[in-house]
Amino acid sequence: MIKIGLIGYGYWGPNLARNFSRQPGCQLTAICEANPGRARQAALDHPGCWIGDDSATMLAATGVDAVVIATPVGCHYHLAKQALMAGRHVLVEKPITETAAEALELVELAERRNLVLAVDHTFLFTGAVRKIKELVDSKALGDFLYVDSVRINLGLFQPDVNVLYDLAPHDLSIVGHLLGEAPKWARAMGACHAGVSQENIVYLHLEYPGGLPAHFHLSWLAPVKIRKTLIAGSERMIVYDDLDQGEKVKVYDKGITVNPDTQSLHNIKVDYRTGDMFAPKLSQREALSLETEHFLRCLRGEEAPLCSGRDGLGVVRILEAAQRSLKAGGSRVEVERD
Amino acid sequence: MIKIGLIGYGYWGPNLARNFSRQPGCQLTAICEANPGRARQAALDHPGCWIGDDSATMLAATGVDAVVIATPVGCHYHLAKQALMAGRHVLVEKPITETAAEALELVELAERRNLVLAVDHTFLFTGAVRKIKELVDSKALGDFLYVDSVRINLGLFQPDVNVLYDLAPHDLSIVGHLLGEAPKWARAMGACHAGVSQENIVYLHLEYPGGLPAHFHLSWLAPVKIRKTLIAGSERMIVYDDLDQGEKVKVYDKGITVNPDTQSLHNIKVDYRTGDMFAPKLSQREALSLETEHFLRCLRGEEAPLCSGRDGLGVVRILEAAQRSLKAGGSRVEVERD
Amino acid sequence: MIKIGLIGYGYWGPNLARNFSRQPGCQLTAICEANPGRARQAALDHPGCWIGDDSATMLAATGVDAVVIATPVGCHYHLAKQALMAGRHVLVEKPITETAAEALELVELAERRNLVLAVDHTFLFTGAVRKIKELVDSKALGDFLYVDSVRINLGLFQPDVNVLYDLAPHDLSIVGHLLGEAPKWARAMGACHAGVSQENIVYLHLEYPGGLPAHFHLSWLAPVKIRKTLIAGSERMIVYDDLDQGEKVKVYDKGITVNPDTQSLHNIKVDYRTGDMFAPKLSQREALSLETEHFLRCLRGEEAPLCSGRDGLGVVRILEAAQRSLKAGGSRVEVERD
Amino acid sequence: MIKIGLIGYGYWGPNLARNFSRQPGCQLTAICEANPGRARQAALDHPGCWIGDDSATMLAATGVDAVVIATPVGCHYHLAKQALMAGRHVLVEKPITETAAEALELVELAERRNLVLAVDHTFLFTGAVRKIKELVDSKALGDFLYVDSVRINLGLFQPDVNVLYDLAPHDLSIVGHLLGEAPKWARAMGACHAGVSQENIVYLHLEYPGGLPAHFHLSWLAPVKIRKTLIAGSERMIVYDDLDQGEKVKVYDKGITVNPDTQSLHNIKVDYRTGDMFAPKLSQREALSLETEHFLRCLRGEEAPLCSGRDGLGVVRILEAAQRSLKAGGSRVEVERD
Repeated sequence: MIKIGLIGYGYWGPNLARNFSRQPGCQLTAICEANPGRARQAALDHPGCWIGDDSATMLAATGVDAVVIATPVGCHYHLAKQALMAGRHVLVEKPITETAAEALELVELAERRNLVLAVDHTFLFTGAVRKIKELVDSKALGDFLYVDSVRINLGLFQPDVNVLYDLAPHDLSIVGHLLGEAPKWARAMGACHAGVSQENIVYLHLEYPGGLPAHFHLSWLAPVKIRKTLIAGSERMIVYDDLDQGEKVKVYDKGITVNPDTQSLHNIKVDYRTGDMFAPKLSQREALSLETEHFLRCLRGEEAPLCSGRDGLGVVRILEAAQRSLKAGGSRVEVERD
Repeated sequence: MIKIGLIGYGYWGPNLARNFSRQPGCQLTAICEANPGRARQAALDHPGCWIGDDSATMLAATGVDAVVIATPVGCHYHLAKQALMAGRHVLVEKPITETAAEALELVELAERRNLVLAVDHTFLFTGAVRKIKELVDSKALGDFLYVDSVRINLGLFQPDVNVLYDLAPHDLSIVGHLLGEAPKWARAMGACHAGVSQENIVYLHLEYPGGLPAHFHLSWLAPVKIRKTLIAGSERMIVYDDLDQGEKVKVYDKGITVNPDTQSLHNIKVDYRTGDMFAPKLSQREALSLETEHFLRCLRGEEAPLCSGRDGLGVVRILEAAQRSLKAGGSRVEVERD
Repeated sequence: MIKIGLIGYGYWGPNLARNFSRQPGCQLTAICEANPGRARQAALDHPGCWIGDDSATMLAATGVDAVVIATPVGCHYHLAKQALMAGRHVLVEKPITETAAEALELVELAERRNLVLAVDHTFLFTGAVRKIKELVDSKALGDFLYVDSVRINLGLFQPDVNVLYDLAPHDLSIVGHLLGEAPKWARAMGACHAGVSQENIVYLHLEYPGGLPAHFHLSWLAPVKIRKTLIAGSERMIVYDDLDQGEKVKVYDKGITVNPDTQSLHNIKVDYRTGDMFAPKLSQREALSLETEHFLRCLRGEEAPLCSGRDGLGVVRILEAAQRSLKAGGSRVEVERD
Repeated sequence: MIKIGLIGYGYWGPNLARNFSRQPGCQLTAICEANPGRARQAALDHPGCWIGDDSATMLAATGVDAVVIATPVGCHYHLAKQALMAGRHVLVEKPITETAAEALELVELAERRNLVLAVDHTFLFTGAVRKIKELVDSKALGDFLYVDSVRINLGLFQPDVNVLYDLAPHDLSIVGHLLGEAPKWARAMGACHAGVSQENIVYLHLEYPGGLPAHFHLSWLAPVKIRKTLIAGSERMIVYDDLDQGEKVKVYDKGITVNPDTQSLHNIKVDYRTGDMFAPKLSQREALSLETEHFLRCLRGEEAPLCSGRDGLGVVRILEAAQRSLKAGGSRVEVERD
C-alpha cells in the first residue's frame, strides 16, 4: 500500500486528493494545508486522514511514500526539495519551479537519490493529447511542418503573473511531449493594458531543431474563447480544438506534393494533396485519474514518468527565454540546454 | 459620359469590366489585353468595345478619361505612370506597385497633375468593413487595445510571391483604414517548405503609435480556412469572421474596468465588464459595384478616394519593412514615413 | 428557520440537498433514502441530518415544514399525497405524477389545505429561459408565429420509459411557461428500434389557441447532440441553442411585413424585414440555487410558484394526449382541460 | 453531334445552356423563350443559336434531337408531351409536372416511343449526394433506421406555391434515390401566416416499407438557414449539412448494439457503439456539368437516367399525398403506387 501525502488543498488539491483516494493499492494518508478553513474542508472530505499545517511534521509523523505538491508555484522548490531530501517521491504542480536553476537542482537531487520526480501537466493525459501523440508516434503526420496554437479568452488578470506564465505551460508541455525535443530559441512580444505591468497578451515564437516553427497566441483579453492548435505534417495535418464537444481532434489527409517538373522557372513546383478527414474516437476517462494511476505505477518502477522533472525543467527554460525576450521587446533569446 | 479603359482581362479584369459597364454615366470604351485568347473573350463579353494589346495605342486612339489597371503587379508602375503622364485618372489593382519608391513617384505625379489615383483594395467596400468603420468612427469601441488577424487556408503556392505579399495587403488596407495611421515598425517571421524559397507561413507584428499592437497570421499551409479578425477597444470588442455566412461582424459589449481600490499590492486592479453581443445587419451590395460607383464620383470631384494612392503607398511601405524583417529573421524594422 | 425534508438521494437528490443546505433561513433537516449505500453517502455529505428510510417516520419524527421529493416518478403521487395530508408543503421532481388524474388530485388537495405544491422543472430557472421569458413578457417578439424544438442525442435507451416521457417535459414546461396557455390538441409519431417497444424517436406536434403550432423532435438515436429551439414572433425571432457556450440566446430582428399593394393576384403580398441580431448577456447563476431560493420565498408567502402543481398537471396532460396519439399512429388527440 | 433545344431562358435556363454548350459531342442548337428581353440575352450569350418564341416552330425548324424544358412547372406537361410526340428526348425541370396523372402519361408516352425522359433533380449530381449514395450502396450504413431532414430559411413567400412544393422536391428526390423505393403513406401539417393561404411551414412525415420513418421540416419563416439531413443506419449514421463549407458529409461510426442478456425485465437491452467519425473528400465538380454529360450518355444509350421520368413521377405522387394530408389537417394519406 503506497501512502500519499498531499500539500495544498486549495483549487486543484481536492481533485488530486479525490483521485488518489480512489486508486487501488494506494492510500491518501495525510493532507497539509495552512489555511484553517481549507484544512477543515480537507478533514470533512477525507475523514481518517492526518491533517496538519506543516510539511516537515507531516513527513516526520506520517510515513508517506510520496508527496504531492499543489501549492502556489513560489513554494514548489522548497517543498519538493524538502520531500526529496527526506527520501520521498514527488509529484508537483506545473510549472515545476519559478526558475530553471531551481528545477535543475531538483532534477539532479531526485536522480542522485533515485527518486521519482514528476510534474503534473495534466493535459498530457487527456484523451485528445494521448490520441495525437499516438498518431505522431505512428508517423502518420510525416515530417513536422509547423505548430500553431491559440489559447485566448476573457480571463482574469492575475496580480503577480503574466499571461505567458499562466497559459503557456499547457501548450509548451503538449508541444514538447509531441516533438520530443527542446526549441533552440524564443521570441516573444506582448502588450500590457489598463496600467498593469503584467502582459495580458503575448505572442511567442519558438524555433525547434531543423527550423521547425511553433507559434503561440496567448491572451486574457479576447472577447471570445478559442483553444485551437494546428499541428501540420507533410502527410497529415491535425486541428485540435479543445472546445469542440463533438470532435476535439480532426485529422486531415492533406499535404504537400512536390511537382518533379521544375524546368520552367515560373512553373509552380509545389502542389497540394487533399483527402478525407477523420475525427478519431477519444477516451473519455478523466485525465487526472489516468495521471494518478500512472504516477503510482512509476512509484512501483513499472513505468517512467510521462512528464518527468526534466520535462518540467524544459518548460521552465522556455518560459525564462520567452520572458527575457518579452522584456527586451521581442529580440531573439536562446533557450538554455544541458 | 465618362469613358473607361481597362488594361488586363485575366482573373479580376472581367469583374471590373462587368461593374463599370453597368454603372450609369460611364462607358467601358476600351480593353487592352496582350493574351489573344483573353482578348477574344473580352470582345465576346463586351461587344462594341475597342480591343487591343497595346496600352499606348489605347490611350492615343480611344480618348478614355480613366485607366483601370488589372495586370500583374510587375506592370502597375509602368502602366500607371504612362496613363498619368497622358493626363488620365487611374484605378490600379492592389498592391499599387512593387516598391514604395515607385508608389511615391506615382502619388506625386498624380498630385502635380491633379489626377485621381485610387487603389483597388476591394475589402474596404464590403458591408462588413464599412459597418466596422462606422462603429470605429462613432467611438463605439473606445480606445483601441489591439488588432489580431488570422487569414489562413490551404492555398496555392505561387511561383514569384510569398504569402506576405499575397495575403497581407487585404489586412493591412483594412487595419490602416480603421486606425487612420501608419505603424511605426514591423517584425515578421516566416517559414518556407518543400524546397521553395518563398515563405508560405508568415507572422507579422506591427506597432502603431501609442504602443498599439497588430498581429497577423498569414498562411497557405493550413488544413482549414480561417479569416478572423479581432479588433479590441476599451469599450467594445469586435470579431469579424469573413467566413460566417450568418453574422460576419459581432460586437461584444466587453471591456476592462480599472478597480480604484489599489491600496493593497496584491489586489487585482483590473476587472472585466461583459454585456450583450450584437451582430449588426450588413449591406449585401457587391463591394466592387460600390467601389466602381465611388471611383466615378471621385472622377467627378464629388468624393475623395476612400483608398488613395497614398493609402496604397502606406500598404507597400509596411510590406517592404515586413519583408526586410523576414529576411533578417525577425528583427525590428522601422516603417518608412513621409 | 424553515425545515426541509428530502426524499430520495439518488441522481438529482444530492443537488437539491446541496442547494437547500446553502440557503439562508432554511435547514436541511432530514433525508429519507431506502438504498443503504445512498443513505450512508447522505449521512457523510450532510452530517447532523436525520437519515432514515421511511417517509412516514420522517414526517412524524422531524417536524419538517416542507418535503422535497426526488424519487422515481412512480412514487411521486403517493409521497406527495402523504406529505400534503400531513400538512407539509411539497416540491416534487418532474413530471409531477404518472397520470393527470393523480396530478389533479394533488393540486386540489394542496389548494384545499392551502399548501404550496411546486414542480421542479429546473430549466425555467436558467439564465437563458429567464431572459427569453423577459423578452416575451415585454412584447418584444410581437405575436407568436410558431415554436420549433429539437432535442436529440445518442442517449441511453431506458427500460421503462420512452423518449417522449424522458425528454419532452423539459420543452413542454418551457413552452407552457412562455406561452402561458395549454395546447388544444396533440399529434405524435414515433419509431422503435432494436426490438424495444419503447419509442426512441418521437415527433410531437401541438396546436395552441389561435392556431399557433409547436413542434418537437425528440430522439435518443441521433449521431450528434442538438438542443435548439426556434421561437418566432411577428416582430422578432429567437434561436435558443442550449449547447452554444458563447451565445445561448440569439434575438433576430426579423419579421414579416405585409405589402399593402395586393391588387394584382400574382403580386407577392408578404415581405421580410431583417435587421440586427443581438445576444443578450445571461445570468450565470446556477438554476437550482435560484429555484430553491424561490421555493423558500413561496413557503413564506412572498411569491407564487413559478411552476405550480397546476403547471405540472398541464405538462402531464400533454404527455398523456401525445402518448395516446403515438399509440394510435399519429391521430389527433385533444388535450384535457379544466 | 447531338443537337439540343432549350425551352425557357429565365433563372435556371442559362445554366443549362452554358453547360450543354460546353459538352463535347453536343451542340446547343436552339433556344425558345417568349420574353423578348430574355430572348435577346439568349442571343447575346449564345451567338449562332436559333432563337425563337414558339416551341412547335423550334421542333419543326431546327432538327433538335432532345428538348430541355426550363419553364414554370405549369408548362412542363404540355411542352414535354409535344416534344415526345415529335420523337424528341426530354430533360425537364423538377417537378416533372403539376399532377401525377400528367407525369404518368408522359412516362408511358416516352416508354412507348422508346425515348429518354429525364428529370432535372440537380442535387443527385452533387459530390455530397453521390458520396452518400456510394456509402449506402456499399452497405456501410447497415439497415436504415430513419431519415430526418431540415431545410429552413427566411425565404421569399411565393404567390402561387407553398413551401412544400418549393422545397420538398429536393429532399424527396434525394431520399428516394438513396432508399430506392417509394413511401407507403404521408402525413403533413403546416401553418400559414400573414393572411396568405399558402403554407410557409410544413412538417412532412413519410413511412417507407418496413416501417422506416422519414421526416421533413420545411420552412420559409426561420431566422436562420439550416440544411441538414440525418440518415441513420444500424452500422453508421450520416450527417449531411449542405451549408458546411468544410465537411458537408460526416459519417459517424455509431450504432445500436443489442445486449443478449435480456433475462431481467429491467435490464437495458440496447446499448450504443461509438467510434471514429470521418468526412470523406467530395468531388468539387459542378453538379449540372455532370448531369448534362450524363444526359448525353443516356441519349447515346450508354447509361440509364439517374433520375428518370418514373422517378420524377414518384416525387409528384408524394407531393400530392402530402398536399391532401395538409388540407385535411394532418390525416394519413396513402401514396399512390403503380
